[in-house]
Amino acid sequence: MTTEREKMTAGEPYQQFDKELIDRRVYIRQQLEEINHITDNKNRNNRFKDLLADTGDDFFVESDFKFDYGFNIHIGDHFYGNYDMTFLDTCPITIGSHCYFGPNIGLYTPVHPLDPKQRNADVELGKPITIGNSAWLGGRVTILPGVTLGDNVVVGAGSVVTKSFGDNVVIAGNPARVIKEVPVSD
Amino acid sequence: MTTEREKMTAGEPYQQFDKELIDRRVYIRQQLEEINHITDNKNRNNRFKDLLADTGDDFFVESDFKFDYGFNIHIGDHFYGNYDMTFLDTCPITIGSHCYFGPNIGLYTPVHPLDPKQRNADVELGKPITIGNSAWLGGRVTILPGVTLGDNVVVGAGSVVTKSFGDNVVIAGNPARVIKEVPVSD
Amino acid sequence: MTTEREKMTAGEPYQQFDKELIDRRVYIRQQLEEINHITDNKNRNNRFKDLLADTGDDFFVESDFKFDYGFNIHIGDHFYGNYDMTFLDTCPITIGSHCYFGPNIGLYTPVHPLDPKQRNADVELGKPITIGNSAWLGGRVTILPGVTLGDNVVVGAGSVVTKSFGDNVVIAGNPARVIKEVPVSD
Repeated sequence: MTTEREKMTAGEPYQQFDKELIDRRVYIRQQLEEINHITDNKNRNNRFKDLLADTGDDFFVESDFKFDYGFNIHIGDHFYGNYDMTFLDTCPITIGSHCYFGPNIGLYTPVHPLDPKQRNADVELGKPITIGNSAWLGGRVTILPGVTLGDNVVVGAGSVVTKSFGDNVVIAGNPARVIKEVPVSD
Repeated sequence: MTTEREKMTAGEPYQQFDKELIDRRVYIRQQLEEINHITDNKNRNNRFKDLLADTGDDFFVESDFKFDYGFNIHIGDHFYGNYDMTFLDTCPITIGSHCYFGPNIGLYTPVHPLDPKQRNADVELGKPITIGNSAWLGGRVTILPGVTLGDNVVVGAGSVVTKSFGDNVVIAGNPARVIKEVPVSD
Repeated sequence: MTTEREKMTAGEPYQQFDKELIDRRVYIRQQLEEINHITDNKNRNNRFKDLLADTGDDFFVESDFKFDYGFNIHIGDHFYGNYDMTFLDTCPITIGSHCYFGPNIGLYTPVHPLDPKQRNADVELGKPITIGNSAWLGGRVTILPGVTLGDNVVVGAGSVVTKSFGDNVVIAGNPARVIKEVPVSD
């Protein structure tokens, strides 16, 4: 017995109108509507942590943080996320420790078929996004489904990341390309 | 007798400080402030539908959806719009049926003169945006005034669409270019 | 005696966990949560003006306008800012008169070290952003730390401005480049 949630998380086609998934989306939107208006940092961040799969010590996210389910978002220690991040977590979004995200970041895991007939038949699927330790994403960075970034990656503001990159690179542009190496001190 | 609203909708220079237009903008912002906090999907979507020129069956938009007037927004059946779309509808925005829009989409119809003296004299105008049937716009897509997209067009996340494209193409980049054909099944 | 606020504003490394700076960030977020829900234009704009270093006559900003401190934001007369602008004002953001900003504009002054060890040690700094008179920024424009734009500059929607430009140019793209001259009437 595989649930639609399990299929979705595994990146397989799933029924978006499955009751468990609908109920979760409704619940998350109700929670976000409440939480994003909380200006007490400790209270707001604890409420966010309750909705996410894994978070660590020293978790701080500004409002308005939006996501689809929360149960597919895994974030390491020492995370800071600035205003207005949107994480679409059809598939797992996994973020290492010591990551620093600017405002208006979009991490999008959903994928739809290119063929309009399949898409219009509500076939949905997705691909995971994985970001290593000590990443710094500048403001308004977009990351596409299936992207993996290594450790110590810096992404320039306004970049659109369409493919994966390894450790210790600064990437920028649309599509993002390596523009320099990251100097890592001993 | 041509009203400023009629001139604006037709793409002619108009007075943005016309009373009818100011009143409508104020009304819309009051409505959006209410509606975007409604987490009941049916209620929220019905309230949005009341403000738009035309919508069809199976209309679903997440919060926070923002627009200027609403009376120039025409959307076909089976529409889904994700979080934080912004439609500036100085001129008509016309969207076909079976369209699927990711989060943070910006459709901008307003145009200002390049000459700063004319612009500072509050000369305003616009150009319409038209999107065919079965479009899929990825997250954070920007569409500029005057753009027409054909049927079955897929726009990659983070793209900036500065000119028109015909049917059955996948476009991406800034500025967006054709990157592949859409496979349309029989 | 130099305060952390003074160091920050001057573009020098500073302690982000300084009490004066934390208190200001908390205060600003509380204020923004209130102000961005005010639909009365005069009331909302007066409340924003109270939080900014300098503003002039005829100041109009739509909600949701977000910033970090406000005390480093200087704006001239006749300013219009559309929906959802984000100004990160670690360092001064200085905007001339007669400027017109589209929706979803991001002006980001914070800079972090590329070296992850320094960044993870919470070393923070920034570079100012300066925009001349009669600028028009299209929707979803991103401006990076240290950028200066001259007078009468037009920035195409969706552009990412990574370096400085002089007067009377239209720039666009990611990274933004000059695409034409601005016609300035006598």
